[in-house]
Amino acid sequence: MATLNGHHARPHDPHSVGIVQRQYAHFDVVLPLRSGARLEGFTLAYETYGQLNAERTNAIMICHALSGDAHVAGYFTDDPAEKPGWWDEAVGPGKMFDTDRYFVICSNVIGGCQGSTGPSSLAPDGRPYALRFPVLTVADMVRAQTHLLEFLNIPTLFAVAGGSMGGMQALQWAVDYPERVRNVLFIAATPVSSTQNIAFNELGRQAIYADPRWNRGDYYDSADRPDGGLAVARMIGHITYMCEDSLNHKFGRQFHGHDGYGFTFETDFEVESYFRYQGQKFTQRFDANSYLYITKALDYFDIADGYGSLSAALERLRAETLVVSFSSDWLYTAEQALDLVTVLEQIGKEVEYHLIQANFGHDSFLVEVELMTRLIGGYLDRQWQREQARLAETPKPDVS
Amino acid sequence: MATLNGHHARPHDPHSVGIVQRQYAHFDVVLPLRSGARLEGFTLAYETYGQLNAERTNAIMICHALSGDAHVAGYFTDDPAEKPGWWDEAVGPGKMFDTDRYFVICSNVIGGCQGSTGPSSLAPDGRPYALRFPVLTVADMVRAQTHLLEFLNIPTLFAVAGGSMGGMQALQWAVDYPERVRNVLFIAATPVSSTQNIAFNELGRQAIYADPRWNRGDYYDSADRPDGGLAVARMIGHITYMCEDSLNHKFGRQFHGHDGYGFTFETDFEVESYFRYQGQKFTQRFDANSYLYITKALDYFDIADGYGSLSAALERLRAETLVVSFSSDWLYTAEQALDLVTVLEQIGKEVEYHLIQANFGHDSFLVEVELMTRLIGGYLDRQWQREQARLAETPKPDVS
Repeated sequence: MATLNGHHARPHDPHSVGIVQRQYAHFDVVLPLRSGARLEGFTLAYETYGQLNAERTNAIMICHALSGDAHVAGYFTDDPAEKPGWWDEAVGPGKMFDTDRYFVICSNVIGGCQGSTGPSSLAPDGRPYALRFPVLTVADMVRAQTHLLEFLNIPTLFAVAGGSMGGMQALQWAVDYPERVRNVLFIAATPVSSTQNIAFNELGRQAIYADPRWNRGDYYDSADRPDGGLAVARMIGHITYMCEDSLNHKFGRQFHGHDGYGFTFETDFEVESYFRYQGQKFTQRFDANSYLYITKALDYFDIADGYGSLSAALERLRAETLVVSFSSDWLYTAEQALDLVTVLEQIGKEVEYHLIQANFGHDSFLVEVELMTRLIGGYLDRQWQREQARLAETPKPDVS
Repeated sequence: MATLNGHHARPHDPHSVGIVQRQYAHFDVVLPLRSGARLEGFTLAYETYGQLNAERTNAIMICHALSGDAHVAGYFTDDPAEKPGWWDEAVGPGKMFDTDRYFVICSNVIGGCQGSTGPSSLAPDGRPYALRFPVLTVADMVRAQTHLLEFLNIPTLFAVAGGSMGGMQALQWAVDYPERVRNVLFIAATPVSSTQNIAFNELGRQAIYADPRWNRGDYYDSADRPDGGLAVARMIGHITYMCEDSLNHKFGRQFHGHDGYGFTFETDFEVESYFRYQGQKFTQRFDANSYLYITKALDYFDIADGYGSLSAALERLRAETLVVSFSSDWLYTAEQALDLVTVLEQIGKEVEYHLIQANFGHDSFLVEVELMTRLIGGYLDRQWQREQARLAETPKPDVS
């Protein structure tokens, strides 16, 4: 099991998608944006897992959240120290998105910084866009993804799924492109960003603006990046992903590295150390301008936008919808999800709603793996079987 | 009613304490601190309202919150544009702290920046303390206030009252100096800072640390102060004083200055404008280092500290306690206040608890004036009458 250079290879895990590769698709098209601006060509970084079936009917698009990327599952190398993709527990053989049956796709959103075109990408003039990059909406992110679907020659998606901003994209997919989406999995998300959602995002942006190294977005040539501001922005976001209970359970008032109060401004409590570390770590993988663009898209998100009302938007759905929210999620609350469920029921659309009692706040959707496997995996399986049954019933042309 | 320079004088308001003056008391004593450090002399800025009675029994100490100061009520000038003290609605003739009956005192905490000795004050060497100022606890703030009480020659307080950090001080008063406090009014506060409380405070501090102009606290000689970081810290605090409902009711998704999305990083929504403005305004009246010191004292706050347990600390109380919390306060929750109430009841101390259904989050205690007047004013009146009745029953020496 030793490799040539002495590293131990990753042991075989039958439930892992194994080694994967990030792929890139460049689209030499003009992408018209909700703002009226146009993006002159763009790249999407994406990954796929499992096999597309011969009928091209088993594709599931997973959409990522604010700080996510296309690397949902598996590993890039066989280095056992490497961590897997961000939702590895969800995607693989026998997992909730079962790659023995489904062909799973995930792409990095435009505006992002993990391989898709965003503010840190080079503009046609050869310099990074920075704030010249157009301000985007979730609808624009989804429109970009339609090009990837066409590139992969997939006419319809069995499902679009996502948590948090991923759930918003999933719903936007089904509203904007109803003929291409058969099921929506809307998890820990909201049909419209609330005032408090906007306020927290703005606080994060203010933390970035307040860092002189941000320099109105023009820092890509500088050795000194706005990491301080970005780390604070991340901490502000991060605290909204947890909840009082999960923080208390995880850290309580435990001290960090000493007993009792330090009476300095060094770290006193474990919880401080946790947030500092998470904030700093984030700056190694994320771009401050992307943080601005993506939070702006979140603020703008209102599924009614462009259709006049929530019910008018949802009337367009041909997909069936699974809505999952978590009792301790105070970022995107059960009440917000219920606004969606209520209207779907009023207009007679198929919807299944689960409010999960969980103590991990917004992050519950990533933490409660067994429960989510039963719920999401079970839903997908039922919908798949129903589809197969319907297909079997469809009269075939008489060839006798 | 016109003054010489053409300004209109403030009209007479029979319920206002009117024009008041900030006073200063310097204490040329060594203040031993919880950390083991000592403060070599200190000043307290304070204000008083109403008259101390001949028996010196009608004094109420009001303690202020994180960003508060000694200026609780009234005005410094007769300029009608001047805003009154921070709890003017609570203190005055006929108000909940009725200055026709009570003598009300409030002093700025040590560590603060509104006239009492803090990190921006000059150390004995003639330079600002900055981070050389000792890290404080709420108990240290209260200990400093005992010197003011002795200076005013007031043996016991009819009540100590406060909201938020003011409530913590009030409870600390009654635990540390039981013989000097007859009633505690503990409003929108917690007997111990929770993990989430600490985390939010640390986020605010991180915002200040991240501002290069903070310069490890050494900025008092600089024209360029860490206002950017301080403004973000204030916004992080401010959002915890409100709640989803109050933000939604006040701002919803209203746009600021234009209709529809701006597709820039200028202000889109009213709620963004509000937080930006409040953050910037705060920097005009507050010192970044004081923000660090006071939030640190909040983090350290645990009324059990030094006594072994919550019940051991509370056993010391000779005061009766009124505890008030608000349903929508997610900073210091009803659950946190109930931890105090439960133990007080278990050990047989007099306590009255009110959970108020209010939609203004933590700030409810400042907003729900009528309700608070009935509740606080009513409680104080009942306690006052009981005390008078007890005094009347006390057998007087026979002088016949």
